Amino acid sequence: MGIEKAPIESTAIQDVAVFELKQIGDQRGSVLHMLRDDSEAFTRFGEIYFSEVFPGVVKAWKRHKQMTQRLAVPCGMAKFVLYDDRQNSASIGHTMEIVLGRPDHYRLLCIPPMIWYGFQSLSKSVAIIANCPDMHHDPSEADLRDYREAGFPYSWEMEKAE
Amino acid sequence: MGIEKAPIESTAIQDVAVFELKQIGDQRGSVLHMLRDDSEAFTRFGEIYFSEVFPGVVKAWKRHKQMTQRLAVPCGMAKFVLYDDRQNSASIGHTMEIVLGRPDHYRLLCIPPMIWYGFQSLSKSVAIIANCPDMHHDPSEADLRDYREAGFPYSWEMEKAE
Repeated sequence: MGIEKAPIESTAIQDVAVFELKQIGDQRGSVLHMLRDDSEAFTRFGEIYFSEVFPGVVKAWKRHKQMTQRLAVPCGMAKFVLYDDRQNSASIGHTMEIVLGRPDHYRLLCIPPMIWYGFQSLSKSVAIIANCPDMHHDPSEADLRDYREAGFPYSWEMEKAE
Repeated sequence: MGIEKAPIESTAIQDVAVFELKQIGDQRGSVLHMLRDDSEAFTRFGEIYFSEVFPGVVKAWKRHKQMTQRLAVPCGMAKFVLYDDRQNSASIGHTMEIVLGRPDHYRLLCIPPMIWYGFQSLSKSVAIIANCPDMHHDPSEADLRDYREAGFPYSWEMEKAE
């Protein structure tokens, strides 16, 4: 199995799940699992694509109306911040921070529809965010906001990126 | 569409296909397409995983009996070498070299079953090989040979890696 176990922890936001991922060490370079058709996090395949993030850069905020994101960081390291403003959610108003990346935080983050999220590179060189959502890109089902927008209870700290 | 067009060129080996991939430039870091459920190269989803390759390192030779490989390099650069020893192939005995990577060789390489292949990093830092094959890993359907094995009409040049 690419995903070794059930979600590793209860998360601060309802319906968000995090799974440890296998890294198979090799002196030539590791093999890094992400998602398989028999993984617990798999439902259907929509697309696999990558988002490159330069040092310190923030890409936020985004919310999908229908799509579930399945994210891993096979190169570099990035901080993800999620914010729940769903009226019917037990975690309404909550934010959640999680670091993904190699080698100590290699895991899969699954974000259901209607959660706001964004990410910031914590790497000195480029970070690569891999996303394997359950449907392919459709701009009509995504909402975007500027990362500095006042309505979010989170401030991205630009100077902390290393 | 993640894949923009039909295969970009006829390849030296029958049934091997190469597609240009879209890179959507952004000063924060590009978005890099790989494969969608409506892409020409898509059949079914087996798995998405990554193979990290350190500078100059060779990972070769491998041959799958049933699985089709779909490969892209979203980080760094790597040379792929393929060798066809299929008795019923029009290209029996042929080898093929192709470079994949960012930013000038960002493309999808599709390798059908029964073709020998391997790869070598051309990067000064790590290269990340992404593979989205049509079935998940099954060690019983793969053959492995050492990259120095004499039966292959190709010599990996260790000193040429930059």
